[in-house]
Amino acid sequence: MKLKPRINIIGRGNVACHLKKAYRANAEIFEVNPHTLAELNPDADITLISVIDSALPEVLARLPKLKGVVAHTSGSTSIDVFNGFAQDRFGVFYPLQTFSKSKELDYGIIPFYIEGSDEATGEILFNCARMISSNVRYAGSEQRKRLHIGAVFACNFVNHLWTLSDSFLKEAGLEFKDLIPLISETVDKIKVLSPAEAQTGPAIRGDQKMIDSHLKELEKNDRLSAIYRLLSESILATRNPLQE
Amino acid sequence: MKLKPRINIIGRGNVACHLKKAYRANAEIFEVNPHTLAELNPDADITLISVIDSALPEVLARLPKLKGVVAHTSGSTSIDVFNGFAQDRFGVFYPLQTFSKSKELDYGIIPFYIEGSDEATGEILFNCARMISSNVRYAGSEQRKRLHIGAVFACNFVNHLWTLSDSFLKEAGLEFKDLIPLISETVDKIKVLSPAEAQTGPAIRGDQKMIDSHLKELEKNDRLSAIYRLLSESILATRNPLQE
Repeated sequence: MKLKPRINIIGRGNVACHLKKAYRANAEIFEVNPHTLAELNPDADITLISVIDSALPEVLARLPKLKGVVAHTSGSTSIDVFNGFAQDRFGVFYPLQTFSKSKELDYGIIPFYIEGSDEATGEILFNCARMISSNVRYAGSEQRKRLHIGAVFACNFVNHLWTLSDSFLKEAGLEFKDLIPLISETVDKIKVLSPAEAQTGPAIRGDQKMIDSHLKELEKNDRLSAIYRLLSESILATRNPLQE
Repeated sequence: MKLKPRINIIGRGNVACHLKKAYRANAEIFEVNPHTLAELNPDADITLISVIDSALPEVLARLPKLKGVVAHTSGSTSIDVFNGFAQDRFGVFYPLQTFSKSKELDYGIIPFYIEGSDEATGEILFNCARMISSNVRYAGSEQRKRLHIGAVFACNFVNHLWTLSDSFLKEAGLEFKDLIPLISETVDKIKVLSPAEAQTGPAIRGDQKMIDSHLKELEKNDRLSAIYRLLSESILATRNPLQE
């Protein structure tokens, strides 16, 4: 790779926007309109396609054969999406982070997951990610799928528990925002302990009396009861009997 | 209350330890051993009992009748625990936070929930909490119970989802700690949006194809499948059809 690589960035969404910003200082960037493909540099070293998953095949269909490596940035799309299209050297260049346009991010700590159509191609994408992040690793499409499921549990489902907590507190005139200092502490803990070590609450203490009293309080709400029961059982199942 | 109130703090746990630190500058503190009750000042304005829930009745049984207000600091113990013991003016003084001895905290933002045996007693405890926190409110024992259940969903269950995600990723040679930047962003979002507004992921998008593909991946793990299914259904049920 040249000292200052040329990178096409196709897309105008949040990820594309942040990638442009991250590479501004150390690459020559071509901002490509995904609809017209105007500004596309056919001699670029790397072309990153950052569009919504469902638009990817259509963009690939219109893309001419390029000299460099072409990669998509989607966590949940297999590398197989490139099959049947013009490119010979392709891959996946997946930054594991939620991006919103207005928020500044520290790119250096964002994990990047790389997959290449062959080893040399993977290396080119790997080195490109290393220019902006210190946390880059290879991962096949199956691993990436697993990572996505892990993130659904750790972020999407977590956020939903907050939504449920919010409604439940509101019903009693209480405010969810009062829980935020406690939630912040809960997150801070898993930066130094494994989540299994950080577990607290009635289920991990085996406090069946309190679990029953909570379930009684929830009995009018079938969904909350079912979630409370299932997650408490799951905590009890992982419980180390030596833990207090 | 006098300008510099006298406060007995009974207990040597994390909460007691932090309360001593928080009041050091603006109260006269008596650090009381919960076993011997040595150092107890019978003329103190306020006596805070901060021992584990199960030890509370036994400490109350040994406590002489005090001139000031006596309060416990437990979120999950009713004010009724004082019934049948020597005190006339009692209450609950509950700081909603996880305390660990080694960690510095900003007491000013910790929410305190106050309950008094009568209005004047409640006010004394309220004013005492206001000396160290700007977020103090009254809450009865029923409300406090609800708050505790809300915290179980928002913290204990959330932490367990992280534990499940950790094991699931480990099985595939992936690292949970790579999710931490994403988890931090997820928490940051609910500081500015309601959790319902902040929801992302396949379920809120109604992406049944992706949900099915994740469930297929989880089919060998009954518990993960059950949790994935139940929480996705719960998200789908709260879904606003106008949301993308």
